[in-house]
Amino acid sequence: MQISPVAMRLTGPLFGEIQMSTYAAPLRDMLFAMKEVGGLDAIAAQPGREEVSADLVEAILEEAGKFASGVLDPINRTGDKIGARWSTGNVVTAAPGFKEAYDSFCETGWHAMPARTEFGGQGLPTLVSTAVAEMWKSAGLGFSLCQMLTQGAVEAIAHHGSEELKAKYLPNMVSGKWTGTMNLTEPQAGSDLAAVRTKAVPEGDHYRVSGTKIFITWGEHDLAENIIHLVLARLPDAPEGVKGISLFVCPKFLVNDDGSLGERNDLACTSIEHKMGIHGSPTSVMSFGDGPGAIGYLVGEAHKGLSYMFTMMNHARVNVGLEGLGVSERAYQHAREYALERVQGRTLVAGSRTIIGHPDVRRMLMDMKARTEAMRALAYYAAGLLDRAAGHEDAGVRAQSQSRAELLTPVVKGWCTEVAQTVTYTGVQIHGGMGFIEETGAAQYMRDAHITTIYEGTTGIQANDLVGRKLCREGGSTMAALLADVRADAQRMVEEGQSCGTDGLGRSLLQSVDALNTATQYLLATYAGNPAAVNAAAVPFLKLTGNVVSGWLLARLAECAAAQIAAGSADYDFLQAKVVTARHYMAHVMSECSGLQAVVTEGAATTLGLSDSQF
Amino acid sequence: MQISPVAMRLTGPLFGEIQMSTYAAPLRDMLFAMKEVGGLDAIAAQPGREEVSADLVEAILEEAGKFASGVLDPINRTGDKIGARWSTGNVVTAAPGFKEAYDSFCETGWHAMPARTEFGGQGLPTLVSTAVAEMWKSAGLGFSLCQMLTQGAVEAIAHHGSEELKAKYLPNMVSGKWTGTMNLTEPQAGSDLAAVRTKAVPEGDHYRVSGTKIFITWGEHDLAENIIHLVLARLPDAPEGVKGISLFVCPKFLVNDDGSLGERNDLACTSIEHKMGIHGSPTSVMSFGDGPGAIGYLVGEAHKGLSYMFTMMNHARVNVGLEGLGVSERAYQHAREYALERVQGRTLVAGSRTIIGHPDVRRMLMDMKARTEAMRALAYYAAGLLDRAAGHEDAGVRAQSQSRAELLTPVVKGWCTEVAQTVTYTGVQIHGGMGFIEETGAAQYMRDAHITTIYEGTTGIQANDLVGRKLCREGGSTMAALLADVRADAQRMVEEGQSCGTDGLGRSLLQSVDALNTATQYLLATYAGNPAAVNAAAVPFLKLTGNVVSGWLLARLAECAAAQIAAGSADYDFLQAKVVTARHYMAHVMSECSGLQAVVTEGAATTLGLSDSQF
Repeated sequence: MQISPVAMRLTGPLFGEIQMSTYAAPLRDMLFAMKEVGGLDAIAAQPGREEVSADLVEAILEEAGKFASGVLDPINRTGDKIGARWSTGNVVTAAPGFKEAYDSFCETGWHAMPARTEFGGQGLPTLVSTAVAEMWKSAGLGFSLCQMLTQGAVEAIAHHGSEELKAKYLPNMVSGKWTGTMNLTEPQAGSDLAAVRTKAVPEGDHYRVSGTKIFITWGEHDLAENIIHLVLARLPDAPEGVKGISLFVCPKFLVNDDGSLGERNDLACTSIEHKMGIHGSPTSVMSFGDGPGAIGYLVGEAHKGLSYMFTMMNHARVNVGLEGLGVSERAYQHAREYALERVQGRTLVAGSRTIIGHPDVRRMLMDMKARTEAMRALAYYAAGLLDRAAGHEDAGVRAQSQSRAELLTPVVKGWCTEVAQTVTYTGVQIHGGMGFIEETGAAQYMRDAHITTIYEGTTGIQANDLVGRKLCREGGSTMAALLADVRADAQRMVEEGQSCGTDGLGRSLLQSVDALNTATQYLLATYAGNPAAVNAAAVPFLKLTGNVVSGWLLARLAECAAAQIAAGSADYDFLQAKVVTARHYMAHVMSECSGLQAVVTEGAATTLGLSDSQF
Repeated sequence: MQISPVAMRLTGPLFGEIQMSTYAAPLRDMLFAMKEVGGLDAIAAQPGREEVSADLVEAILEEAGKFASGVLDPINRTGDKIGARWSTGNVVTAAPGFKEAYDSFCETGWHAMPARTEFGGQGLPTLVSTAVAEMWKSAGLGFSLCQMLTQGAVEAIAHHGSEELKAKYLPNMVSGKWTGTMNLTEPQAGSDLAAVRTKAVPEGDHYRVSGTKIFITWGEHDLAENIIHLVLARLPDAPEGVKGISLFVCPKFLVNDDGSLGERNDLACTSIEHKMGIHGSPTSVMSFGDGPGAIGYLVGEAHKGLSYMFTMMNHARVNVGLEGLGVSERAYQHAREYALERVQGRTLVAGSRTIIGHPDVRRMLMDMKARTEAMRALAYYAAGLLDRAAGHEDAGVRAQSQSRAELLTPVVKGWCTEVAQTVTYTGVQIHGGMGFIEETGAAQYMRDAHITTIYEGTTGIQANDLVGRKLCREGGSTMAALLADVRADAQRMVEEGQSCGTDGLGRSLLQSVDALNTATQYLLATYAGNPAAVNAAAVPFLKLTGNVVSGWLLARLAECAAAQIAAGSADYDFLQAKVVTARHYMAHVMSECSGLQAVVTEGAATTLGLSDSQF
């Protein structure tokens, strides 16, 4: 394993000196998944994508990997240990090393990379920027959030803002000179944004915004010279509920017509939260309008703010799913290194002298590997769908890809992040007592991962979106098409896979697709009459869907690997591992499906069986 | 909910002022489980137990509950937030409030309570002290460890020490005037104690001990005037491996013949660990013999130290399982209070205005409740077995209870602590974004809980003990007897439970006992030829066993509740909740059993399917 010269060495009482592992981007795994389930070649062949070659993609991934390993990974522990600090005067100082890393991130163009070319970005396929984003999330989750939020704000302004707003704000936000935020949550308005109370009063060409926003990621910091806040607020004449919320741009420093910075706006970060994880990312309490009101500019039309936000939110949700993947990959690498180095007890696996030779440790590591690769297959598949939805020549394929991407968005978010809890927990467990000691670093991944099942909508919110908007309200047609694809592939594996061992994968898939279909039919039949029962079953249904779809994609990867082995590929070890990993997933994860199906179809009665006072 | 006057009020940016929930011992649930699965009445009727009446037990539990709520729960957050501190001079200062609470804990007799009467304890049944210990673990896990370790040291000296050692050390250790520790782990000797290197050289009537011990719980602190360390070390002529380890008493201050404290011994706490949780409990690095060697006294015979420790370890393991239960109960109460208070969005459950009216939140809370009650049923059942093994009139029952208690010890430890991860995670999840903020308190339970699957042997170690020593080496006879009992009860429920709805519980049980039996037969048939495959299946097998046995016990509780309802009990709400909770457990947890069985019987091939370099 390559060790960066800046990698931290910790001296501790336990091992004298602990050599921290350094992140290495899993380039081969990434490229294999991009090609074989993401559909990279077809996406690169889309009209207008002439510049995207396999060589270019490989070169981008390689360079991104170097930046992640060499610059971000070494400061990730400092971000956790020291974190961002708030001080009087409402100043927030990023963790040591973050400013230098951020400057380098912008100068080398990584900050601008995912944006569209018209605003200064690279305009690469979503699939490629997804793989790159996975690396940032692996190497520094807290750090990565600043760019992710800025990107969301850029997209909101680009889609819905006036030409004037775009010209004034986007170039500097894309380059990273300025950063962006999303100000949604208020103390009484979390999952339920209908309860937003922040006010915006018209005043000439702008508005005066006042109210308190909480949980604002990178809401204040010293990385960039200006911060562009997107703020949800109500106009004086706004209707109640979700249809009375508008979206405003409130810059930290007002921007003069010549682009120079003017006065400080009337907004401040009054504190930052003390959190379980992602200490590198300052989570701010923002106070707007303690004086005359913060000057804000309306984005798009009045009262449409929430729908603008929801456009962005789908993008953000896929990104948070990707965080689950990124942190899991990092936790896996960390645990693998420990298991390959730590000597303890007599091992049962021939040839393995360290604890990886204990079958139970090997099981844990294999589980981490299989689940992480399953997340990657699912996330890259969804990214590929977005590229097909945006740029495929055939309008039918575009529409079908779009609806499937929408169906899978809450699954990518909800399932990957829930699985990340298991994976990062297992990473700590492989370390034994050392895992509970913060200096080892394994615990950070687990603490950081926990935010991912909460923000951008909890798993419960994702699951409700899946069973409601994405499944039942459209009568299940998108899901039916997906299940038909899974079934067809499974059938083919059963029929044609005997020589290379993929027939068993097909049989497992057929069983689990039956379970998912049964659960789906139950929800469709129950929705109209008993929405509470459907909501009670939503999270188990999301887990079942994630298991089946990602299992399908892993089986397809195994099928490709088996075919390459049969064709005489020299890369036997890598390819054979793909086949074993898919089989492991079937035996250890897909075996959960029948139980999950039962929870969906039979679980609601008792979930709803007690009165409040019986709890 | 009763709020103690000392309950903390935290001011935070989010809700203005957060009213922390206060622990309330679930006395009715505890007594119900003690009676109906713990066998309290029969244990109270054992010879020599004349003083144990139902009234006395209730009074003890009630008083313990008051102490837990009023004294321990209020300092639990301080323990987490400020924690124990090490300072130069190798001094450790406990968290604010701990010294006062400890003094009160000793003065009121709670410290001495679990000890045998001959050393100054109350000599109560294990079942009763188990219920009391659950409260300490709920209200203050970090605090409770000091007594637990002392108790273990007391037992070790009481069982194996000379009369002189007993007379000199036990009275003060039982009263809490002095505390005790267990010094086992060394940097290279964690799960594998065969690798212990600490040395003990004879010198007159004592030994000189030198070496480094790590992970020593409450190894140094300012709560008591002396600390009695039990230390595993090797004599100069000791054989290699586990058969060359002896046990020594090394007091922090040497004790003069008149019982007064003499010189400081040559041992010191050179640092304490920075951990993910249990910050209130100082985890010490102990250095013995930096000068002439720490004076130590041999316990029992030379070279038998490890077997002495293993006697203690079974007790400690049940206690750690109980920690899983205790923290889960506390996390459940905390989440319940939040779900009953927090208003957010339109609810689907009629009559519930707060988030408990969202079916998915209700599902999470119901899962927490069912799993926590399942842990309690299992832990109290195991405690009752220990009482029967110690004091039943019939030698056959004593022997059978002992072997069943030994079979279930790794299950209580491994299963309750793994389930506690799920429960405490769910507790955070119910809080949404507030769960990730440390001030809310939900995160602490999750961080604290994580140590329980690690110390006193990881889940992997427990599972290996279960499948090896407790199952396969005795040909599965103890497990067969247990399964026969489960099957007989299930059959009875199917046949007799139609009128009160327990027949469905019986049918679920029959299915899952079949799954456990299939898994058991597979392990028994595989053990001799392929021990690696058995080890690879050990943790899933432990989880399957825990699910089935605790499901059986919950079903028995439901059966008792149904009978009491049929007999016209006025306590309908409480009793009916027991029936619904058992049914929920069957639908939501027991449904995992078929999947777990498949992992056991079919999972080893892929777990062991890659070479080290393929990871």
